[in-house]
Amino acid sequence: MDTVTSQIGRVRELVDRHLARLLDERLGRLGFLDGPDVELVREFLVDFVLNGGKRVRPAFAYWGYRAAGGERPAEVLPAACAVELVHAAALLLDDVMDEADSRRGRPSAHVALAALHRRSGWRGDADRFGESAATLLALLAWGWADAALLKTGPRLGPALEILTRLRVEAIGGQYLDLACTAAARAGDERTSTISLYKSGKYTVERPLHLGHAIAGGSPRLRRTLSAYALPLGEAFQLRDDVNGVFGDPACTGKPAGADLLQGKATYLLAEARRRTGSALLADITDQLGVAAARELIRDCGALEAVERRIATLVDEAVTMLDAPPGISPEARQALTELAVLCTTRDF
Amino acid sequence: MDTVTSQIGRVRELVDRHLARLLDERLGRLGFLDGPDVELVREFLVDFVLNGGKRVRPAFAYWGYRAAGGERPAEVLPAACAVELVHAAALLLDDVMDEADSRRGRPSAHVALAALHRRSGWRGDADRFGESAATLLALLAWGWADAALLKTGPRLGPALEILTRLRVEAIGGQYLDLACTAAARAGDERTSTISLYKSGKYTVERPLHLGHAIAGGSPRLRRTLSAYALPLGEAFQLRDDVNGVFGDPACTGKPAGADLLQGKATYLLAEARRRTGSALLADITDQLGVAAARELIRDCGALEAVERRIATLVDEAVTMLDAPPGISPEARQALTELAVLCTTRDF
Repeated sequence: MDTVTSQIGRVRELVDRHLARLLDERLGRLGFLDGPDVELVREFLVDFVLNGGKRVRPAFAYWGYRAAGGERPAEVLPAACAVELVHAAALLLDDVMDEADSRRGRPSAHVALAALHRRSGWRGDADRFGESAATLLALLAWGWADAALLKTGPRLGPALEILTRLRVEAIGGQYLDLACTAAARAGDERTSTISLYKSGKYTVERPLHLGHAIAGGSPRLRRTLSAYALPLGEAFQLRDDVNGVFGDPACTGKPAGADLLQGKATYLLAEARRRTGSALLADITDQLGVAAARELIRDCGALEAVERRIATLVDEAVTMLDAPPGISPEARQALTELAVLCTTRDF
Repeated sequence: MDTVTSQIGRVRELVDRHLARLLDERLGRLGFLDGPDVELVREFLVDFVLNGGKRVRPAFAYWGYRAAGGERPAEVLPAACAVELVHAAALLLDDVMDEADSRRGRPSAHVALAALHRRSGWRGDADRFGESAATLLALLAWGWADAALLKTGPRLGPALEILTRLRVEAIGGQYLDLACTAAARAGDERTSTISLYKSGKYTVERPLHLGHAIAGGSPRLRRTLSAYALPLGEAFQLRDDVNGVFGDPACTGKPAGADLLQGKATYLLAEARRRTGSALLADITDQLGVAAARELIRDCGALEAVERRIATLVDEAVTMLDAPPGISPEARQALTELAVLCTTRDF
């Protein structure tokens, strides 16, 4: 197990180093902006990307490549960085759309940019400036993802095809989330479609496919990777739901019990409502605080049920890796450990 | 001249047909959304793209390809559609950032989407929904631009490189505009940098380079195309400034005298202020109306000066086409006519 952990750590270092170099190079090409504007891109995009995130999606891209027999890491690292940049864009935009004040334990970008506007005594509406600037930074991250991908070499076409699917699906998932919240269209089926597109495909399946495409893997292996990815993506989302209630703010970067405070429609909270017969979790949180609501969710057995479900899904995912045509023992072991790691409490 | 006009018209038809087919195909791949969501994408993105716009950027992409000796239109049409989709995204986002209520003579997308939210009695903030949904549609258009580009064939790499530059420069130009307005950093030099990046490179130079790259043109021809593009881009922006004051709402899709009402920092209005020694154009517009402000701008000679400058820039652009290595007479004639056409009043 030790060797694999160090393998996963080594890949993370490779990705981080590649990402740092790439961002530095990109920053150097913004010479048409003024100095303070470039500094702002450094602070709110480059530092944001480099000083946070667990590189989950790059890891799946990398190991999808290795699983498909790829042997030259330099071929897949640009794509691994590209998915991380797409993810940075998604976080910046999510925070604007959700009006979230904090991210990774700091003020979110649009909030910090609005504060800069106020502090500088600039003209116009500070909040609008913050949102517009954060949106432009997100677009820049998307553009830089393409710039990264350009270094993929001869498999650029298949790689761009997968990255495009990943982006379109993520946009669709975000829209479904928006529309279902607005139109109260939720329901178990809807929630799981949203989670499939916002999390399962986006976080696990498409990054794996991206690496697989760059290695020129077989259609059969691609299906195996999907069979592993989809239960794992669901488990990843459930872990996110648990962290949204029980997570340590130092790890989640959000206030304790964030999902409770927002009354978010997660599987965990739906399960708790079913078991307690109460739609009043939000009220309990308001009146008695996060600790009492957590206790209720624990006591009614909802937490344990979700933990059991996560374990089952992770097992299911890992079992799929044994399907023919089979992957190298090294990739199999890394994907097994990644499945456990990325669904671990407070990871 | 007649043959060329019909050539330009024929290319526009080719682009329109390709775009319609592409959008239809893309829409068909949104099966993971609900029916009403797909209809919304049709109304606010597909119809928006198909029922408006002059296809200026696709025309430059096409003729850049032809100028570089490309002879198979099917090779360049995907890229021509891609720039149009990037442009649609830019318009959707600009309207959110500028809080513009109308576009192409209709309510802008975020306004119409907010109205839909209100009409449907959905939950949450209608304006926030409108802006988020319009932003997601813009991202979808960007993603679809990549999907279009994928059909470019073996020159995908060089094409994606140029499209990435175009996007990064457009984002940078938009940010400069935002920051300079906020920080009152304007000045002649700044205004012309913004115009260079928001208009010159984005509208003319990069689309030409895109076509040129797909045809595998020479570096020397690329420089010739830049020499044509940059004065023309400036003329295009100046025409936009004139239309912003004197344009027919039926053509501009905006209220009469929109720039006057917004007090926008354009070259035309700066010229008028210089000549009248008055910083009060906005006040004159407020007190005496658009007609009086227009009269002032005409009487002080600012309009004529700008018209003269447009004519000079167009001449300068066209002259550049004669530089070696030379381009085909057909492409030369089309680019000459395009230069005149896209800087024509109320085009």
